[in-house]
Amino acid sequence: MKVPGELVELMLREERFTIASHVNPEGDAIGSSIALALALKGLNKDVRVFNTDGVPAVYGFLPYSGLVETVMDGERLKDSVLVVLDCNSLDRVGLDGAECRRVVVIDHHQTVTDFGDVRWIEPDSPAAGLMVFNLLRALGTRIDGDIAVNLYTAIAVDTGTFRYPNTTAETFRAAADLVDAGADPAEVSNRLYESWSEKRFGLLVRVLQTLDIVDAGSVRCAITNVTLDMFRETGTGAADTENFINFPRMIGSVEIAVMFREEEPGCWKVSLRSRGACDVSAVASRFGGGGHRNAAGYRACGSLADLRRGFLEAVQFCAAAG
Amino acid sequence: MKVPGELVELMLREERFTIASHVNPEGDAIGSSIALALALKGLNKDVRVFNTDGVPAVYGFLPYSGLVETVMDGERLKDSVLVVLDCNSLDRVGLDGAECRRVVVIDHHQTVTDFGDVRWIEPDSPAAGLMVFNLLRALGTRIDGDIAVNLYTAIAVDTGTFRYPNTTAETFRAAADLVDAGADPAEVSNRLYESWSEKRFGLLVRVLQTLDIVDAGSVRCAITNVTLDMFRETGTGAADTENFINFPRMIGSVEIAVMFREEEPGCWKVSLRSRGACDVSAVASRFGGGGHRNAAGYRACGSLADLRRGFLEAVQFCAAAG
Repeated sequence: MKVPGELVELMLREERFTIASHVNPEGDAIGSSIALALALKGLNKDVRVFNTDGVPAVYGFLPYSGLVETVMDGERLKDSVLVVLDCNSLDRVGLDGAECRRVVVIDHHQTVTDFGDVRWIEPDSPAAGLMVFNLLRALGTRIDGDIAVNLYTAIAVDTGTFRYPNTTAETFRAAADLVDAGADPAEVSNRLYESWSEKRFGLLVRVLQTLDIVDAGSVRCAITNVTLDMFRETGTGAADTENFINFPRMIGSVEIAVMFREEEPGCWKVSLRSRGACDVSAVASRFGGGGHRNAAGYRACGSLADLRRGFLEAVQFCAAAG
Repeated sequence: MKVPGELVELMLREERFTIASHVNPEGDAIGSSIALALALKGLNKDVRVFNTDGVPAVYGFLPYSGLVETVMDGERLKDSVLVVLDCNSLDRVGLDGAECRRVVVIDHHQTVTDFGDVRWIEPDSPAAGLMVFNLLRALGTRIDGDIAVNLYTAIAVDTGTFRYPNTTAETFRAAADLVDAGADPAEVSNRLYESWSEKRFGLLVRVLQTLDIVDAGSVRCAITNVTLDMFRETGTGAADTENFINFPRMIGSVEIAVMFREEEPGCWKVSLRSRGACDVSAVASRFGGGGHRNAAGYRACGSLADLRRGFLEAVQFCAAAG
């Protein structure tokens, strides 16, 4: 992974940064944002971190998670280099129409737009966190324990702690260096996987009860859903569903897992995961969504029965198209 | 981790080896045995691999898993260097009283005995697989793709894919080298964690629906049960419940997880897991069972309501006793 010289130069030259990551953030968005902010602060830059949805409770353990602000005034932005992290549009960070001095995009998601004054896109990187790790190396900043925990968590989340196909030798070497710098793999795993609230676990059980396994042509799909009613009844919210979609993937026969999450009455966020044989980003793009081959999503309104039918048809179409 | 020179010298000098690992083997025992055998074969040694229980089905994917033999004749042993791997006694490998030319012990479990002519014990190593990795380096043998998959799996299993407290920076560096040599992290994880039958997953959902979280004094307990009816209705059996008890441990507030599994009508196997603050072997011993501080079990007959009450009282007693 080669860090663009132009990016390094800009980071060293500019003085004021606002780091923004995508709405509904996960550990990679939050961890890599905080890590980059700490490193830039170490270079005596004026840095602020923005995420419109804030830090999900599960990531409250991240050092300096309190840095993340959910409101950012326009004057500040105008005067900042805006670093769009782990995504690649103003829309995705919830800052549509914002004006800023310059825009830097650092993302590991494939994109077709050319948004940003300086763009660094690495579709083969498992996590934005691994890109920030390399950026900090290129900047020559020291990775201290706080930065290490943030970056380790970012990488751990986006690789399913080294279980997903995006896990490379470079990922492991970065993890080794982050452990040397102070990240504790067991502590992070404990925070990520064994610190659920009782309410969240109750929601998981409810969601798993909706599991339906059906064939779309030759592609076996595991379908789950979570409704606003379930959130209400269990006292939970959208953030509590993170990672739910991966549970049905434990089933060997399942090629695609899909979860319908109700965002507003009758409108759904549809998350897709594939084992790799089927490109779910192609499925998602048919509904105006996007993502990677193995993880994608889209939004749609309608009855669950209609949306299921549409989804299964799209899978058949994509499967037939190869 | 330093490989004893005496061990390297012996491996290079001797010509005939029998590699044996412990009864009831897991991925570390099997993977590190096969990896060492392949490496020694590469040095033109006469090598055989023994495990009295053979290769569990879940590890059938390991390259050259067919090398593992479940019977080994005494004449062969007499003429061999016996390599006792991932344990440190003849008893543990099921070869009590066997005679052999010399005995080498390679183990990462703490021991008080001095069994073996050449002993290499590394209690801080997360896996025997990591020791074999270092041994192969010291022997100067090439780690090919088949060896890499075996060693990667060995390390993955014993570290819970890099989630347990034994996961070190050295572990990650070895994983990186093994990926470079041909191990595929996602493929191994898929074999280990994502190959459940649909029936087994259906049983899990049923069991999780029984979850009840209650306080025994100050100790928060997560109680689940699985009945003969559930086995019947889902077409599953006791073996399918392996690891089920760990799911409620995802809940941060839960100190003890207990699962009641019906073995015969009205008679139950009770499995206990603790995060460490409470010694569940003390609970189990009150009912004639046993185990370790963090994992224990017992058997009892009666109504589930009575057994629950008895269990919760025992936890209170133990908690009060400190």
